[in-house]
Order: sequence, then structure tokens, then C-alpha cells
Amino acid sequence: MTGDAHRALARARLLVAPALNASLVGELERITGRSAEPLTDVPPPPGAPLLCVGDALPEALRTERLLWFHSVNAGTDSLLSAGHWPAGALLTRTVGRMGERIAQYVLAWVLAECQSVPEFTAQHARAQWQRLPSELAAGQTALIYGTGRIGTAVGRLLQACGVHTVGVARTPRPAAGFDRVIGADADREALGAARWVVSTLPLTEATEGFFGAYRFGAVRGATFVGVGRGATVDLGALEEALRGGGVRGAVLDVLPEEPAAPGDPVWRLPRTVITSHSAGITADEDVAVDFAACWQAVAAGRRPASAVDVGRGY
Amino acid sequence: MTGDAHRALARARLLVAPALNASLVGELERITGRSAEPLTDVPPPPGAPLLCVGDALPEALRTERLLWFHSVNAGTDSLLSAGHWPAGALLTRTVGRMGERIAQYVLAWVLAECQSVPEFTAQHARAQWQRLPSELAAGQTALIYGTGRIGTAVGRLLQACGVHTVGVARTPRPAAGFDRVIGADADREALGAARWVVSTLPLTEATEGFFGAYRFGAVRGATFVGVGRGATVDLGALEEALRGGGVRGAVLDVLPEEPAAPGDPVWRLPRTVITSHSAGITADEDVAVDFAACWQAVAAGRRPASAVDVGRGY
Repeated sequence: MTGDAHRALARARLLVAPALNASLVGELERITGRSAEPLTDVPPPPGAPLLCVGDALPEALRTERLLWFHSVNAGTDSLLSAGHWPAGALLTRTVGRMGERIAQYVLAWVLAECQSVPEFTAQHARAQWQRLPSELAAGQTALIYGTGRIGTAVGRLLQACGVHTVGVARTPRPAAGFDRVIGADADREALGAARWVVSTLPLTEATEGFFGAYRFGAVRGATFVGVGRGATVDLGALEEALRGGGVRGAVLDVLPEEPAAPGDPVWRLPRTVITSHSAGITADEDVAVDFAACWQAVAAGRRPASAVDVGRGY
Repeated sequence: MTGDAHRALARARLLVAPALNASLVGELERITGRSAEPLTDVPPPPGAPLLCVGDALPEALRTERLLWFHSVNAGTDSLLSAGHWPAGALLTRTVGRMGERIAQYVLAWVLAECQSVPEFTAQHARAQWQRLPSELAAGQTALIYGTGRIGTAVGRLLQACGVHTVGVARTPRPAAGFDRVIGADADREALGAARWVVSTLPLTEATEGFFGAYRFGAVRGATFVGVGRGATVDLGALEEALRGGGVRGAVLDVLPEEPAAPGDPVWRLPRTVITSHSAGITADEDVAVDFAACWQAVAAGRRPASAVDVGRGY
């Protein structure tokens, strides 16, 4: 965005995707000091430049009038691959707090299991007073696959609750959030000793079906928590280990094929909860916070930190 | 316990309460190197001194034969008030890890609410794929009543998850686990600003009905978590605040009268879960660990750290 464009911003029209919640739209109007119009495939009457906020950009708006597009998502690959990006238009994205959100998700389910949260909820519905045993998470071990940004956030939070954390990486080296890190080719013993096995793995050729009979067969009583990519898990192997009792339970945020239809057999896996790919979602609050930061930068004539290099694609 | 008694321990009979789980009894047998016999109101044939583990001591065993009684509970007041304590007999107790257990309970329910654990469990049962919003606990505020051992454990753990913690004490002074501590007579503003209100209060004349219309009426959207003593809460005032919407929800481990019968109206409080006084219970593991520490001390001729001063009662 040039200095001219910065001045153009003052008279730009604000177009927002119709799917956005009213409260978020209100925030965007407050930040920009103007009223929002719906972002559709019909461009507004000629004249003012356009500032758009949404997840997709119709072809009709991919013109020189586009001053700035703010993506409500972290990923912008589908936005860029869907058509030509107008020269000079700024693209910013919502980075959000994915690592922190996924870490709180993992800890929530770890503690829910230790404290029998679903069982107490069911007992309450039956008006039944009965003590249930609880288990201390502190002092037990979580084996966490992936020692990147997400894995580190998960490890740090579990450590803060007294859980021993062992990271698994292709190339093991010390990483924040982990008491130790081991290699993915030497994880069988650690699988047998863990109380929780957490996957934050991305999907690559090397990780497709990574959690299969070999690894699930080594588990001795751990609960599996999947927050990486669904296709890293071989569901047939997981089912066998659940039925055999080696895997104590499973919490799956992601599946190889999403969404799961009501008749999908995955819903009938024993001792499993599926959470509809909700662990790392970007909240409206994240969109507003990240957009406000971009707005401040642009107003000050700076390039926003979350601006996407359109040529490189990230 | 005298040096003579220490030698007497070598030939003592091990009596354990019949209610103890077989795995715990096995642990006690392993630690003491002898077989366990049931602790009943019929003393074993005369001869060997007695080492008892349980929660109550029959009158017939309150004799000079009693060498050592280990209480599976932390409180020993009912044990001492139920009859004469034989001179010279050692009384030890299970201290357990109550603070840590209650802290993990509180955090589990805080995060379960943020991550919609009960709602996802119900959706799963219906084979329903639907994203649900999540909320970050980090950055929000918990107001914690009681800054003693339990309150401090709760504050420390919530802080570790990024929650701001405000303690409430009769006499406010800085305490571990709290970003700040305020006085119980100046808490109305803090009640309005909190996302969670946690009570760890003991029952005294000053705290009976402490959480009544005055305090619940000041709450603006917080969830109440009660892990102190049940009679500190005025359930009628809580119900009114729940119905009015000021209190968002409640998690009650304790009630003024326990157990709640199936027909008790407390089960019908809106947006509430009752967990049957389970948050701080002593686990078998705690009994075994604490007994083993006592055994080591006695075997080394030392007085165990958890020995009760029978004259003072604690």
C-alpha cells in the first residue's frame, strides 16, 4: 500500500462478508469509523476504493479498486489461488491465537477425563449423588507429537499443570515446553509409558497414516488426543486398539474426512468424543483484534505485521 | 512411640478396615511385610501388639495393645472424640494432596466450560458434527475466596493457565497464587468484573450464608464454583441470581445438606452441575504414600511428620 493508498483509505467503502456476526461487523465499523456494506459479487457503484473483510473475494472485485482485503482466516492460499490478485492491493490475515487455543483445548479434555466431567454431568441429569474417583494429571506423562508452534504451546501448558511432557520430532532437539524430545523412529517405549498421546502433526507425505497399527499397538492405557490433521490417523488401527483396550479413549478434533455424516461409523468408536474441528478456530475476537492492529499500522503508514507477501503466498 | 514400641512393631499384627480396596490392602501388606487381617470390634487373640489402618477404631481395640493407628482420612477429630485414646499409642493421618486435587478440579471445570466439554459430549452421542464456540480462559479473571492452602493451590494453577487471580481474605495481604488480594468487605466491584467466582471458604460463624443475595446480586456473568463448605452458600440467593442471569452457571461440589436426595430441588437449579463432594477426596494412592512415609520414619526411630498430637487433637 502506497502513501496515496493510505490517503485513499480515508474515503474507502467497507465491504464485509454477509456471514460475519453482527457484533464483529459492529466492531469493524467502530474501528474504521464508517458503515459496513455487504461483500457480494456485485461491485458497488464506481468511485471510492474498497476495503473488504471476509474469507473469499469474488472475481468482480479483483480490480484496481481493491485497496485492502483482510482475511478472517489464517490461511490465504485458497483466496490467492481462486483468481488474479490485483496489483498493489494489500492482503492481511487473522493470525489469531491458535497455539494458545489448541493448548487450552487439549488441557480441557485431559482434565475433563481426570475429573470425570462428562460422567458428573450425566449423573447430575439423573439427580444422582455419587462420588466418582478423580485422577491427578500432575505427575503423569504426555507424549506430544510435533514440537513446532502448536506442540510447544501444548507442552508449555501441560507442564504448567505438573504434567511431564515428552516431545516427538523428526529431528530431536531440546524445545520449549518439553522435558525431553525424542525421535519419531524411537517412540515405542514412550508410547507404552504415556498417559496421553497428543498429535499436533501437519499432513505431509511422511505423516499420512502415521498413527497406525505399529504405534497404536504400542500404547498401554493412554488416551489419544488428535488436534493435528485427520489423515495422519488410521482410524481402523485406532478402532482396533480401542477395542483391544490398549488405547483407553480418544478425543478427535479432526478426521480424515470432514464433516462426519450422522451414519459415519466413526461416531461408534468406543470411548471416543469427536469435537467437529473446533479446537483452533479463529474467534470473532481474534479477527477484530488483528484487524485493529492492521488498521493502526496502515493509519501510521506502516506495513502491517500480518500482511501477506502475495508473490510468495504467505 | 518409644524405642521399645519400635521393636514391638516388628511383631505387630496388621489390621485393616474391611472397606479398604484390595489393591490398597496389598500395598499395605507390601510396605509392612506381613498379611493383613480385618479390623473388627473383636480383638485378635492376646499376644502381639496391633497396627491398625482405617477410619474408625472400635472400643474393644482402645487398649494398651494398640501400638499405632493410621487414619485413612486427614481429619482425626471424630476418631479422637469417639472414645479414650490409649496412652502411648501413635496416631498418624493421611494428609494427601487435597490442595492440588481441588485445584485440578477447579481448573477442569473452568476449562470444560470454556471448551464446551459437556456440549460436545452430548453432540457426539447424537452423532452430530457441529462447531461450537470456545473461550480462552487466559486473560480472564477468577475471584477466589480464601487465600489459605487450598485457595493458594487454586490460584497458582489458574495463574499457570494465564488466568488473572484476585484473592479475597478477611485481612488482605499479598499471597502466593494471587495477582492481588482484596478484603471481604470490599468485594462488590470485583464480583462484577470476574468471569469465575471460586469459594474455598471453611465454615465458621462468619462464613455461614456468606454467599447470599448481597454477593450473588453483584455478579455480572460469572460462573460460581463452590469447593469450600456447603453452608457458606445461600442456595435460595444463588437460585435467584441464576434465574436472573447475573450468575452464568454453577459448579457445586458441596451443599449445605449432603447427600442431596433424588427429589431435592437443588438438582433443578438452572445451568448447574453438582459433583457429590468429590473434589478433595483422599485417594488410595495418597493413603499408601503417606503410610509408607510414616513406616519409614517409625522404622528409623523418628516421629512421623503426620503424627497427631492426641492432646491437642491435630
